[in-house]
Amino acid sequence: MSRPIDFYFDFSSPYGYMAAQKIDALAAKYGRAVDWHPMLLGVVFKQTGMAPLTQVPIKGDYSRRDFERSARFHGIAFHMPPVFPIASQAPSRIVLWAKARDPALATRLALALYAAFFCDGLDISNPDVAADVAGSVTNEMGVDRAAARACIDDPVVKDLLKREVEAAIAAGVFGSPYVVVDGEPFWGLDRFDQLERWLSTGGF
Amino acid sequence: MSRPIDFYFDFSSPYGYMAAQKIDALAAKYGRAVDWHPMLLGVVFKQTGMAPLTQVPIKGDYSRRDFERSARFHGIAFHMPPVFPIASQAPSRIVLWAKARDPALATRLALALYAAFFCDGLDISNPDVAADVAGSVTNEMGVDRAAARACIDDPVVKDLLKREVEAAIAAGVFGSPYVVVDGEPFWGLDRFDQLERWLSTGGF
Repeated sequence: MSRPIDFYFDFSSPYGYMAAQKIDALAAKYGRAVDWHPMLLGVVFKQTGMAPLTQVPIKGDYSRRDFERSARFHGIAFHMPPVFPIASQAPSRIVLWAKARDPALATRLALALYAAFFCDGLDISNPDVAADVAGSVTNEMGVDRAAARACIDDPVVKDLLKREVEAAIAAGVFGSPYVVVDGEPFWGLDRFDQLERWLSTGGF
Repeated sequence: MSRPIDFYFDFSSPYGYMAAQKIDALAAKYGRAVDWHPMLLGVVFKQTGMAPLTQVPIKGDYSRRDFERSARFHGIAFHMPPVFPIASQAPSRIVLWAKARDPALATRLALALYAAFFCDGLDISNPDVAADVAGSVTNEMGVDRAAARACIDDPVVKDLLKREVEAAIAAGVFGSPYVVVDGEPFWGLDRFDQLERWLSTGGF
């Protein structure tokens, strides 16, 4: 059995959101599972001197245009959120907390949180809003709104996210989406063509 | 007759080099010509606060790996030059000077200069080296080594490049390769899939 593919994403990342719509199906096509890792790019930006795309002079305007066009190109619903970028702690903690109980549920929550932000324009950096979204996802694992809201302020879950981000940075993750297959890193939705060839050939 | 596609590239850009191998054939497939614009990204970096890819912490190591892998993916010869990045004034001036005489010759020179740098490892930022390469390209336009070497120090050609770079920045160019089709901008070799759909459909 092959190792799962590592999929790193930031909830504030449009290309991460788009990649999240594709990664499970792409992996399954080649018999692989996906390990979903929420990531805080703000921590990386401090180390690399980078900034959110939309805040870079000249590049920012292009980026907003490219988000919309890339979504149309891939046939993915997308509306630029009114509040952007956002801090991703609240949704990331919910996903990690759920992942410890049931990874499949964590993936469903991640997709619901991403859709709330990039389709419905909800500010999921707000713990109450993120908990509302989590509470709306039907499940049998006891992930109701109250439990999701509580985990965001839980020191154990806070520490879990902190260690997850440190591990991602140690693994070389500097952007979103960022996928690692058997030690080979792929940054960006626009490397999914190379990622697929890698999966199908075992490397090139 | 449709307007030519504008193709902006920096001689120090690996993805610009790879895109240069593809742009003319892609455009021709849709009945379009290509206007080749050498660009100095160093001038843009000062305005955007960006830096050459390989000099960004963490991202730099990934970038070098991605250059090599992307070249293999696209079936393009590539060897990371021993001196990198380089200042692109010398080859850019040769191309602009030739373009004023014969755009097709300018394209051939651009491809030869790119290959000298990214296949043969020659430091084409050196005016003598760039002139050697230009002199090796057979042509009937009087572009010999001596003329190519002289144009690099010609104040008229220097001014031509300066104005070309200013025009590119005014047009929003912040990276390499950067392609504009009927007002629609595409940044990166990894947007050639969207570029092709745009050319084939007239926009999406």
